[in-house]
Amino acid sequence: MTAKSQVKWTDDARTALRAGEGFRLADLDPESTPGYAGDKKDGAVDLAAGLAQLADLQERLFAASHAGPGRDAVLLVLQAMDSAGKGGIVRHVVGGVDPQGVELAAFKAPTEEERAHDFLWRIEQRVPRPGYIGVFDRSHYEDVLIGRVRELAPPEEIERRYSAIVDFERRLVEGGTRIVKVMLHISYDEQGGRLMERLDRADKHWKYNPGDVDERALWPAYQEAYQTVIERTSTDVAPWHVVPANRKWYARLAVQALLLETLEDIDPRWPAADFDVEAEKARLRATIR
Amino acid sequence: MTAKSQVKWTDDARTALRAGEGFRLADLDPESTPGYAGDKKDGAVDLAAGLAQLADLQERLFAASHAGPGRDAVLLVLQAMDSAGKGGIVRHVVGGVDPQGVELAAFKAPTEEERAHDFLWRIEQRVPRPGYIGVFDRSHYEDVLIGRVRELAPPEEIERRYSAIVDFERRLVEGGTRIVKVMLHISYDEQGGRLMERLDRADKHWKYNPGDVDERALWPAYQEAYQTVIERTSTDVAPWHVVPANRKWYARLAVQALLLETLEDIDPRWPAADFDVEAEKARLRATIR
Repeated sequence: MTAKSQVKWTDDARTALRAGEGFRLADLDPESTPGYAGDKKDGAVDLAAGLAQLADLQERLFAASHAGPGRDAVLLVLQAMDSAGKGGIVRHVVGGVDPQGVELAAFKAPTEEERAHDFLWRIEQRVPRPGYIGVFDRSHYEDVLIGRVRELAPPEEIERRYSAIVDFERRLVEGGTRIVKVMLHISYDEQGGRLMERLDRADKHWKYNPGDVDERALWPAYQEAYQTVIERTSTDVAPWHVVPANRKWYARLAVQALLLETLEDIDPRWPAADFDVEAEKARLRATIR
Repeated sequence: MTAKSQVKWTDDARTALRAGEGFRLADLDPESTPGYAGDKKDGAVDLAAGLAQLADLQERLFAASHAGPGRDAVLLVLQAMDSAGKGGIVRHVVGGVDPQGVELAAFKAPTEEERAHDFLWRIEQRVPRPGYIGVFDRSHYEDVLIGRVRELAPPEEIERRYSAIVDFERRLVEGGTRIVKVMLHISYDEQGGRLMERLDRADKHWKYNPGDVDERALWPAYQEAYQTVIERTSTDVAPWHVVPANRKWYARLAVQALLLETLEDIDPRWPAADFDVEAEKARLRATIR
């Protein structure tokens, strides 16, 4: 019995969550659980089962490129409004994988040096090597999200970036990287509640920033910017997946499912030995008392 | 009831495992479990309890430096003969911590560029920032271990390096980094069995390298080199801990205990808000429908 047969998915997560032709962010209910027929309790069981499966697939991916000819890598791109749960995804989904096989990059506001280069310069430096699962906590998409909403660049530069992103991602995919783009989608009300919780608890104050309320005031503009990002950059080789995230348990399960399906597609195999196994056994045996 | 009160430690791990004055590696039994009165089953319970504790302390460490004045960091240095279990420590001990708070560096044979610099050049680049737990899988100690055994540098250069390491580590400690140096200590026979297992299982072949047997042939020279490393670089501010590692469950538990004790020493606190909490609540409330 595989983990797959136990889970309450009614559809592939990649199918259920893909932002295809005609997708309207405004029409997606952040409370919904597309493709999944279970409740929170089922979700906990399935998440635990998936962790073991993900750990196994990751180790194969790593082995295939470290001792074999494999060139495959996976890049998970996480984008979301504040408090939507990116950190929880990293902790509870990515955290179940051997840290030796993960390359995590958290992109903050660019430094002076980074701003002096093209916006993709700092991104290129952090793409995962073959065999690794890369995770971008925020990404090059900030440059067409906050970049657009806060007018950090002129409109023609923002326009240029959509095409540059499409080309850049196609190049990564051609090199063997599977890109899993995820927007965690919470509602305006849910964000209000989560930010208030940070203010209510002394052990959460450090996660709060007065700038969070300023950004929140621009909510409609950000939703528009996400809609445009999806329209302009959801391609066949690197589609967007929009994950309803008001229910944290569902968002974590869904991102795990997206990763599992991607790794199952790669189907990484243990590489064959590039040495003579019997000869090595004999050499080793000679050293054993 | 704290996790501490449940565990079967009879002594602080740092006391039980410290390689102090007069320490003789050859006298330490790799099968032993210093400071711990439990068996494998107890060890599993205590490891699980420790994971939650470690995760909590790590989050506080991170918070204290990200939103407060904290300058503390932790650096775990892992050294060992092949197959001693460094990978398992990273997976099962470090892997229980939020990946967002960990900086892992695996040092392989130096590149041409790295060899052109002083041996500490590449090390300096990977020391953890404040708030992070850094993990070195191999380290600058390779330069006085394989460097000495394989005569990759002249004896006077190896001599110079011991003092350079002591100075370097003192500087890190003065900057706020607690260094936890761990040698995982397995027996020659145990290594033979573990390498043979890699050859016996097709899914482990990728972990085997014919060079492993060549290194194994130099076992006595490596043991001597470790003894010298400990004598020359086990200082008050950055002592060595030698962890008997024939029993994997003990080694993992012991390294976890070393990290827990180090973090408890730091005792990181949630930082106070650097904004007016009530004023922010009012601003946020005004945005909530």
